[in-house]
Amino acid sequence: MNEINIGILGCGVIGTGVAKILIEKSDLLSKRTGTKLNLKYISDLDTNRERDVKFDKGVLISDSEKIINDPEINIIVELIGGQTIAKEFIIKALKNGKHVVTANKALLSTHGNELVKIARENQVDLAFEASTAGCIPIIKTLKESHIGNHIKSISAILNGTCNYILTKISKQGFSFEQALKTAQEKGFAEADPTLDIEGIDTAHKLAILNTIAHGIDFNLEDIHVEGISRITPLDIQYASELGYTIKLLAISKFNPDNIEARVHPTMIPVSNPLSNVDNSMNAVVVDGDATGHTMLYGHGAGMMPTASAVINDIADISRTFLAGSKRRTPILGFPEKNIKKAVILPMKNLTTRYYLRCIAEDHPGVLSKVSGILGDEGISIETVHQKGMKSNGTVPVVMVTHIAKEENMLKALNKISQLDSIPEEPYLIRIEDNK
Amino acid sequence: MNEINIGILGCGVIGTGVAKILIEKSDLLSKRTGTKLNLKYISDLDTNRERDVKFDKGVLISDSEKIINDPEINIIVELIGGQTIAKEFIIKALKNGKHVVTANKALLSTHGNELVKIARENQVDLAFEASTAGCIPIIKTLKESHIGNHIKSISAILNGTCNYILTKISKQGFSFEQALKTAQEKGFAEADPTLDIEGIDTAHKLAILNTIAHGIDFNLEDIHVEGISRITPLDIQYASELGYTIKLLAISKFNPDNIEARVHPTMIPVSNPLSNVDNSMNAVVVDGDATGHTMLYGHGAGMMPTASAVINDIADISRTFLAGSKRRTPILGFPEKNIKKAVILPMKNLTTRYYLRCIAEDHPGVLSKVSGILGDEGISIETVHQKGMKSNGTVPVVMVTHIAKEENMLKALNKISQLDSIPEEPYLIRIEDNK
Repeated sequence: MNEINIGILGCGVIGTGVAKILIEKSDLLSKRTGTKLNLKYISDLDTNRERDVKFDKGVLISDSEKIINDPEINIIVELIGGQTIAKEFIIKALKNGKHVVTANKALLSTHGNELVKIARENQVDLAFEASTAGCIPIIKTLKESHIGNHIKSISAILNGTCNYILTKISKQGFSFEQALKTAQEKGFAEADPTLDIEGIDTAHKLAILNTIAHGIDFNLEDIHVEGISRITPLDIQYASELGYTIKLLAISKFNPDNIEARVHPTMIPVSNPLSNVDNSMNAVVVDGDATGHTMLYGHGAGMMPTASAVINDIADISRTFLAGSKRRTPILGFPEKNIKKAVILPMKNLTTRYYLRCIAEDHPGVLSKVSGILGDEGISIETVHQKGMKSNGTVPVVMVTHIAKEENMLKALNKISQLDSIPEEPYLIRIEDNK
Repeated sequence: MNEINIGILGCGVIGTGVAKILIEKSDLLSKRTGTKLNLKYISDLDTNRERDVKFDKGVLISDSEKIINDPEINIIVELIGGQTIAKEFIIKALKNGKHVVTANKALLSTHGNELVKIARENQVDLAFEASTAGCIPIIKTLKESHIGNHIKSISAILNGTCNYILTKISKQGFSFEQALKTAQEKGFAEADPTLDIEGIDTAHKLAILNTIAHGIDFNLEDIHVEGISRITPLDIQYASELGYTIKLLAISKFNPDNIEARVHPTMIPVSNPLSNVDNSMNAVVVDGDATGHTMLYGHGAGMMPTASAVINDIADISRTFLAGSKRRTPILGFPEKNIKKAVILPMKNLTTRYYLRCIAEDHPGVLSKVSGILGDEGISIETVHQKGMKSNGTVPVVMVTHIAKEENMLKALNKISQLDSIPEEPYLIRIEDNK
């Protein structure tokens, strides 16, 4: 039985989880793969901290370079995170002929094209199941289980922090601030939650899904990103009355001439299976032209779910190695020579339906002014909702539009915000209900 | 570029779908796999019938043996169905050194051990993603994406016909007969629906999932199977009042000394994600000890979803072949030498909670007799529900038990059915709510 030697860079939460499975479930892994997946080394600058796993002497070391340069090591697992030292280590490992497994979505989404090229030049594999949606096998599913499908669209909940906050606001009436605080107390949100709350983490993951779904290169910079910090309980209440749930979605759509790729709060009908995905759970709906809609649901983060995804990549590479080959499945699902340049639809050209919330002073004629501005921009209103009054004398006016163009909607929004009788910045939420 | 030559046996609905993808999406398949997946032959006894795909001259033939014996053909796809000629053809193909793809759940679940053995002896692959849950990639997910997990349990909706009928009864107040008739009119149910309605098709699929989840041999005969034909709108109404949905579930659980494997109508809490899986959709919840609960959801049948799954298997075998190897992933997820004999928990030893419905004549003392019988068998009652009266003077009595042993429950049921004041056979539904 050939042994596969593994070196892990980074012994934080996920690194510890991966080590736990490799060590504590060695028997199960051998039974499934027919080989021993041997953790030779794991590196961390801090080798003294107490961790929830027992290493043999000499396994936990501080020198990552020693791991990368060890000729016995077949697979390097990068779990340091970030885009500086992690990138450097991955490149060295690839150049040393090591297969690399990583969960680093920030790095892949920004430097993925370069890393894939280096992996190809060195004829090694680069795997990243754990980078997106935790234990949900969406990378493998897109690369291997939609082979005969044009992917028409992907809609996904990819950030547990945002989904937890939105669930707390909608199901328990929390304010945004209360919900965030609870998420932080429960460990679902970082002390600085910007990456999550502002949709950036979701955009990193969308860039990855976009690439493997459509066979295009990584293109993070053209993805529209909007977070959830401006959503109020009022919006959620109106959404519910209109038959919608608000979720932070990653959306990827295949158009004949371009790809839509955007991250923003989205109103989806309560009948959409994503609307039942609550708390910190993740889910991905893929619409293939042969499969129709499928959904994968599970834990998108956490030590063991994420470690489980890393182990899948290790086993995948090992099985291919044991079968006497390598690079069996293209890194991006399509052989590199078939990867096309990404052409992302400019956001201003998007057409969709909108929910528009204005907080208006209760003067006669406000409604007429707002609807006049929308009319001037060629935006047709489907429904108007006005009721109640805030203690400060303002009144929320909510409108739902027919299909409109983003560019026109933004022009209208700008004009509306300049009205004297609209003291607060108006806010729009895009609606997706053509399931 | 090496071409992969494919021969399909059977040009019915699914065979036509697979041929459509191979022919009409040849470009997409080449882009993804880097090779041409060439449909060399497809056989059917009827070569004249109009089909929704255009074959080149000489591709559609009546002689299956010619395909099986063609030395140029790499992969044989068996889509004839049934357990006689299909089995014979698969064995011949395996012995001729062909990799085989099949969707034949009835054959696999009954003769899977023999077929896997022959595939191993001839060092070829046997793939069957399309056999279970249509386009949902549950076979691949269990074999490749839960590597570091002990599978604690699987609960699945695997039969679209039953799920459609149960949805119509619960959401639209149909009777069982009305719902079945509608399913037949819509093409979701066969003229003879026995295989579906009585849970047999679900049991075939469970036998397959059970095998690859736990690394045990196929064992259909020990799976308890019960269909949905005795469920009434009354049961569904009570379930709803108690906070449950009734679904026909395939359940597989890993116990230290044995495996539970059973198919029966099941009450699940409305908070269980399977309770939102409606109409003809399928879904599989897998509880891994590292991943926690994950769910895969999608179309479990139909021409294109099923054909899509067959194409995945073809591409998988082709990618391994192109990488210069074969049999990369064990047929059953575990190398054959590690497959253990299945030890299925005898149903009489099951412990669970029960819903019990008795239709009683409205005599004083009936409730006391029924509860007395349960007490005699050591079964403790959690709640009792009695209300309303049928026009014939009978009254439904519904009880929910605490955890009880199946053997005792069946004894009690037998005694209750012999009471003079219980004119109809009493009925029990098992409850699963330890999520």
